Amino acid sequence: MDVFDRLKAAAADDWQSYVDHEFVRQLGARTLPQAAFRTYLVQDYLFLIQFARAYALATYKSRTLADMRMAQAGLTAILDEMDLHVRLCGRWGLAPEDIETAPEHQATVAYTRFVLDCGAAGDLLDLHVALAPCVIGYAEIGRNLTPKGIDALGDHPYREWISEYAGEAYQDVAAAARRHLDDLAARAMTERRFTELAVLFGKASRLEASFWQMGLDVAER
Amino acid sequence: MDVFDRLKAAAADDWQSYVDHEFVRQLGARTLPQAAFRTYLVQDYLFLIQFARAYALATYKSRTLADMRMAQAGLTAILDEMDLHVRLCGRWGLAPEDIETAPEHQATVAYTRFVLDCGAAGDLLDLHVALAPCVIGYAEIGRNLTPKGIDALGDHPYREWISEYAGEAYQDVAAAARRHLDDLAARAMTERRFTELAVLFGKASRLEASFWQMGLDVAER
Amino acid sequence: MDVFDRLKAAAADDWQSYVDHEFVRQLGARTLPQAAFRTYLVQDYLFLIQFARAYALATYKSRTLADMRMAQAGLTAILDEMDLHVRLCGRWGLAPEDIETAPEHQATVAYTRFVLDCGAAGDLLDLHVALAPCVIGYAEIGRNLTPKGIDALGDHPYREWISEYAGEAYQDVAAAARRHLDDLAARAMTERRFTELAVLFGKASRLEASFWQMGLDVAER
Amino acid sequence: MDVFDRLKAAAADDWQSYVDHEFVRQLGARTLPQAAFRTYLVQDYLFLIQFARAYALATYKSRTLADMRMAQAGLTAILDEMDLHVRLCGRWGLAPEDIETAPEHQATVAYTRFVLDCGAAGDLLDLHVALAPCVIGYAEIGRNLTPKGIDALGDHPYREWISEYAGEAYQDVAAAARRHLDDLAARAMTERRFTELAVLFGKASRLEASFWQMGLDVAER
Repeated sequence: MDVFDRLKAAAADDWQSYVDHEFVRQLGARTLPQAAFRTYLVQDYLFLIQFARAYALATYKSRTLADMRMAQAGLTAILDEMDLHVRLCGRWGLAPEDIETAPEHQATVAYTRFVLDCGAAGDLLDLHVALAPCVIGYAEIGRNLTPKGIDALGDHPYREWISEYAGEAYQDVAAAARRHLDDLAARAMTERRFTELAVLFGKASRLEASFWQMGLDVAER
Repeated sequence: MDVFDRLKAAAADDWQSYVDHEFVRQLGARTLPQAAFRTYLVQDYLFLIQFARAYALATYKSRTLADMRMAQAGLTAILDEMDLHVRLCGRWGLAPEDIETAPEHQATVAYTRFVLDCGAAGDLLDLHVALAPCVIGYAEIGRNLTPKGIDALGDHPYREWISEYAGEAYQDVAAAARRHLDDLAARAMTERRFTELAVLFGKASRLEASFWQMGLDVAER
Repeated sequence: MDVFDRLKAAAADDWQSYVDHEFVRQLGARTLPQAAFRTYLVQDYLFLIQFARAYALATYKSRTLADMRMAQAGLTAILDEMDLHVRLCGRWGLAPEDIETAPEHQATVAYTRFVLDCGAAGDLLDLHVALAPCVIGYAEIGRNLTPKGIDALGDHPYREWISEYAGEAYQDVAAAARRHLDDLAARAMTERRFTELAVLFGKASRLEASFWQMGLDVAER
Repeated sequence: MDVFDRLKAAAADDWQSYVDHEFVRQLGARTLPQAAFRTYLVQDYLFLIQFARAYALATYKSRTLADMRMAQAGLTAILDEMDLHVRLCGRWGLAPEDIETAPEHQATVAYTRFVLDCGAAGDLLDLHVALAPCVIGYAEIGRNLTPKGIDALGDHPYREWISEYAGEAYQDVAAAARRHLDDLAARAMTERRFTELAVLFGKASRLEASFWQMGLDVAER
């Protein structure tokens, strides 16, 4: 059991409420309203801006050149991902102006600033545990949504999004993030600290679940 | 017009949505459900813990001993206020254990971490503008709720809370915070910067409005 | 062996170069030039301003109310100590203006900003280990300089300074700081982390030794 | 007069003590002892590690994607520069192990942590003003050392180092940094703030001068 699996086990209900959220189910079942997905896409872009800041914070807090280079690679990857995101938004009829001028939803503020504050107040391990539901969780969700592989998705309306996270490239990113968590834990995790980290992980998972809920709420109005 | 009045004018709708929120109206009209008020009280305690951290951050970021002593006085005042808060909670049937073990609501996380992040990423002026809706806004709300003075409240169920913020001591705190904002602005506020600060102030006001809304939402369930 | 003793043992040479520095020896032997002491006093005042910031940072980074209150007490104590310091300076013919307008020496910048950076980039344990040579070391130096007790100092020219740190009140402060270090270590210190902390502690001790050296260097010119 | 020229004019003596330091003169006159240059090279590598952290901090503190991308480009450039640095060290007989295990000199700690603390406690403008003596100053020094152009250096023993900073690529980096400073100042610099920034700039320049002095001091021993 690696650290990530231990965190999931320790915060099982919170984790389940996130990875198995109604938004994810409907997305998998092709029934998610397009308005919900569009809302999510726009907020996810604003989310990525703050996530880039989180990786910059990780770079700043690094003690070794190796940690620094790894965090900087994460930062560069996110800034690149934002260009892809703009293209995906474009295919859903959202112009760059719509995205950048959209106000941040409370759910976006809550999760992103929580992560940044965990990182500012704590150390690299706190920061990466707070990031884990997003970075590693999306890989699990992508895998869950493709039990028969990506090709079986056929003309699934959310095929592009699902393949992104179910695909090998992203699965590798998540696997590397799990190993990095183990490495950080080997350096700085006592058992007492694990208990604190599990609370933090559960809280971050609930904030991610609220991020999905925001998409559904907007569509219902 | 001091800086605070300029910020209010520039973000008038957001400000109004906060100081004139339905929660505040019902509280003034004695019709606010007790469940809503209790939810608010508990979350406000968790809120104060983060606000104490914000004043500690202001102390850390101070350039002059005068700024440092002022921020430290704010920090001490909040830590003292928390004891009062525990007593107020007690009168509403909430034991210290109920309060400290309560999970933070998303609205609490969103506003408090937003303020802390404004302060960590920006300077003292950013931090104090983000704090202003709370620190200065509560004085305005207290005044609005006592058009005929505190004595006219009679046996108002929320008399203790209203008098706290309508009272002279808190009005003085808010007046000092306004002067401090003017002083910080005289040092570091260009007109371009004012435009950015007004956006920040509007966002903080909306997050405060969502904090009231959280109380109503819980009571409705 | 508590954590502090382990750190001392692991960085024995660096520690010795600090607590047994020529400045300290001359101070104990009554032969320290007054110019050296005056230079030290002024820089120590500038040092305390940054140390107050370090305790504010510790308050900001605290996870529990107990940690927060302890850090805030440290902050308040330092701000109070600064008033005492001004009085001590006065008895050495240094006016408040001389002190506050004095430029920070490189040795002052190096140690204080190193401590603040350890705290900003790391966690509370890093911060308190970086502070330890100062906070706990001064108690050891005070004790070393009073092998026959404070009364035996007689008309020692540096009696006031020595008694301050050899006195019971400061010895208690240092003892509490040692216990706090043990408590933080019980939460977050693995053996791998101890190795990193010992490096940090050795570096902080050398920077403290350079702070003494600065006093001697100025007197020699 | 751009902001950088105004800062130089306001802190003229400090600036001169840095760009016209004896180390620079001897380097230009081919008389600088190799031991002084080697010491400098090793410490400059340790310096760059902290400077990479400063650009990561700038990325984290950015408000706009444009600022974020600019800071991230700076970060990437420094991490790349470190590889070049290792090669330059190699030509001076310094193995990577010599460099990475070298202890940081007090002068290195003082300037780098001062910059990082300016950035952590202040805003982007504070951070970039503290970085300016290094980023922009090296271009001025490079230009000063090549009054007849780079080709006229002939078989100058420090030709490689001088050409690096006198070369067009680095001159462009410095010109961009000056424009960025003007842009940040247009957003957030009042006249009162300029006075504070000039003090900060003077202090940073003196810490840079001490960094040169460290090289000479080591060679003299």
